[in-house]
Amino acid sequence: MAVARELQSRLTKPAGSLGDLEPLSVRLSGLAGVCPPPLPEPAAVAVFAGDHGVHAQGVSPWPQEVTAQMVANFLAGGAVVNAFARQVGASVTVIDVGVATPMSGDFVAANVRRGTRDMTVEPALTRDEARAAVETGIRIAEQLISGGARCLLTGDMGIANTTPAAALIAAFTGARSAAVTGRGTGIDDATHAHKTEIVAAALALHRPDPADPLGVLATVGGLEHAALAGFILGAAAHRVPVIVDGVIAASGALAAAAFAPDTVAAMVAGHRSAEPGASVALAHLGLTPLLDLGMRLGEGSGAVLALPVVAAAVRVLHEVATFDSAGVSEK
Amino acid sequence: MAVARELQSRLTKPAGSLGDLEPLSVRLSGLAGVCPPPLPEPAAVAVFAGDHGVHAQGVSPWPQEVTAQMVANFLAGGAVVNAFARQVGASVTVIDVGVATPMSGDFVAANVRRGTRDMTVEPALTRDEARAAVETGIRIAEQLISGGARCLLTGDMGIANTTPAAALIAAFTGARSAAVTGRGTGIDDATHAHKTEIVAAALALHRPDPADPLGVLATVGGLEHAALAGFILGAAAHRVPVIVDGVIAASGALAAAAFAPDTVAAMVAGHRSAEPGASVALAHLGLTPLLDLGMRLGEGSGAVLALPVVAAAVRVLHEVATFDSAGVSEK
Repeated sequence: MAVARELQSRLTKPAGSLGDLEPLSVRLSGLAGVCPPPLPEPAAVAVFAGDHGVHAQGVSPWPQEVTAQMVANFLAGGAVVNAFARQVGASVTVIDVGVATPMSGDFVAANVRRGTRDMTVEPALTRDEARAAVETGIRIAEQLISGGARCLLTGDMGIANTTPAAALIAAFTGARSAAVTGRGTGIDDATHAHKTEIVAAALALHRPDPADPLGVLATVGGLEHAALAGFILGAAAHRVPVIVDGVIAASGALAAAAFAPDTVAAMVAGHRSAEPGASVALAHLGLTPLLDLGMRLGEGSGAVLALPVVAAAVRVLHEVATFDSAGVSEK
Repeated sequence: MAVARELQSRLTKPAGSLGDLEPLSVRLSGLAGVCPPPLPEPAAVAVFAGDHGVHAQGVSPWPQEVTAQMVANFLAGGAVVNAFARQVGASVTVIDVGVATPMSGDFVAANVRRGTRDMTVEPALTRDEARAAVETGIRIAEQLISGGARCLLTGDMGIANTTPAAALIAAFTGARSAAVTGRGTGIDDATHAHKTEIVAAALALHRPDPADPLGVLATVGGLEHAALAGFILGAAAHRVPVIVDGVIAASGALAAAAFAPDTVAAMVAGHRSAEPGASVALAHLGLTPLLDLGMRLGEGSGAVLALPVVAAAVRVLHEVATFDSAGVSEK
C-alpha cells in the first residue's frame, strides 16, 4: 500500500485528482500484496438463487415462482445482469442454492433445501443447512478463481429476499427494523409497514447473537445470503477483490465480516442501492460505494456496472506514465 | 421516448429498479428518434488542448509548458485518459487548438493562436478566433461521426484552463465568481482567493452578455472551451450523444446551449467534478451527473469512466427480455 501511494504521487496527474479511485488502487494493492495489483479481469458474477418461507407472510407482491422463472431468464441471457455482464466482459454463473421450484438447465445444482422455513414461525434454516450454503459459496468462489477469475462479483435472485436481508442487517448492526427495511421491488405503504413488522417479529422471536454469524444466518437469513457470505470469504481467502452489489450482498458481507473481520479488505462496494439497509450495512463495514444511481434490482447489476471503475483504478497503476518517464514538469 | 418508456415497463425487472439508467435510456431514444437507440459504440474522446494568457496572473502552480508536455504524453498513450479509454474501448484524438508551445506528433493541427491573451487586460480572443475554434470543434465532431463514432466524449488539456471555465460559467449562469472558482489542480487558500479575484476582475472588465455566446467565449473564454462548445454542437446536430466531462466541458456545454438550447438533449453529464463550477453549470443545464467520485483531472477522464454506464442503459433496451417473451409472471 505504501508503494502504491508513492507511485500515485509520481504519476502524470495532480495529486488526488482521481478522487476515490486513488485510495481504491491503494487498497487493492494491499489486498494483492503487490503494486500494481492484477487487473480485475476476467471478472465473474455468481448469481445465487433461493426462496423464502417468509414469502407466505405477504411481504412481496411477486409470486414465488418468479425466482425459478428468472433463473431460466439468466440462463437464456435475457436478464439485466446478462446485458450488463456482456457490456463489461464478465461471465455469469447461476447457482441454485435454495430455489423452491425444481428446475432444469445449465445452473450449478447446489440446492440445500427448496426454500427456507418461515422465520416468523421457526428458524429459517438449521445450522447445518446454513453451513452448507456458506460452504457452497466458498466452493463457487474457489472454482471461479481456479478458472482464472481475478475479480468476483456478487449476484442474487430470490423473491422476498430483501426481508431476510433486512433482518440480517438489523441483527449484525443493531439497527432497528424500520431503519433497514425497504420497499424491495416496489411495495406500497401498507405492505412496507407490514414488512417492517415482520422483520421486527422475527428478530424478537430469535434474538440472534451477532457474535454467532452462523446462528444469525440460520435463524433470520436465507440460503443465497449465506452462500454470498461464503463467496466473499472464498474471495478474501484468495486475496481476490469481490465487488459487493446491493442489499442482499451487503447482508452477506456483514456475515462474512462477522466470521472473519479481515475479509472487509477484499470487499469493494459497487453501488449505493436504494434499499436503506444497504447503506446501513456499508457504513457498518466502513465501505463507500462507487456508484449511486438509485438502482434496486439486485442480480449483481450494480456490482457489474462498477467493474469498469475498479478496473480503471487498477489500470492507472499499470499504464500511466510518471513525471520522470514522460518528461512532464512538476509544479 | 414514449416507446422507450413503454418498453422499460415490459422488461423483466421491477419498474424503476434501474434508477437513473431508465430515464437516460428514454432520453437517448428521443435523441436518436428510435427505440432502441444505437449502442454508443464505437466511442471517441476528443482532447482539445490550449494555453491561456491569464496564466501570467499566477492562477496555477504549474508551468505553461506542461500543456505541450501532456499532449506528448497523450500521443504516447501514457496519460490517465489513455488508460481509461483502453479500459472501455474508446479512441482518443488530440487536437491542438491553441497550445502556446510549437509541437510535433500525431495530433490534429488546428492551432488558432499560441495561447489566448490575458483576459484581465484585454479580450482573450477576437470574435473571429473564437469562431474558428468553435468551427474546429464542429469539424472534429463531424469527422469522428463520419468515421463511425456513435458516442462522443469531451476531453481537454490546458494549464490554467479552470480560470476561464469559471469566468464562462459565471457569465452564462449569473453565479458569482466565488461560487464557481475552484482549486483546479490543487492550489492553496491564498492562490484560490487570488484566482477568485482574477475571475471577478475579468468579468467586471468585459461584462460579457450571455445572449452573445461568441462574445462570451471571446472575452473570457479559451480556445479549448470554444472548441468543446463546437464539438457538442456537432454531436447534437447529428443526434449523437456527447458525454460531458468536468468543469471545462461544462463551461463549453453552457456556450453550446446558449448557441442552440436544443443541444442539451444530446448531452450526458458523465460525472460530478470536484470543481464547484461544474455543479453550477450542470444544474443550469438541468443535467444530473452519472458518477460522483471526487475526480478533478479533466482530460475527459470522467466522461470515459461514465461510458459503460451509458452503454449499459442503452443495452438494456436492446437485450433484456420482456415478461411475455421470458415467461416471467408479473406481480
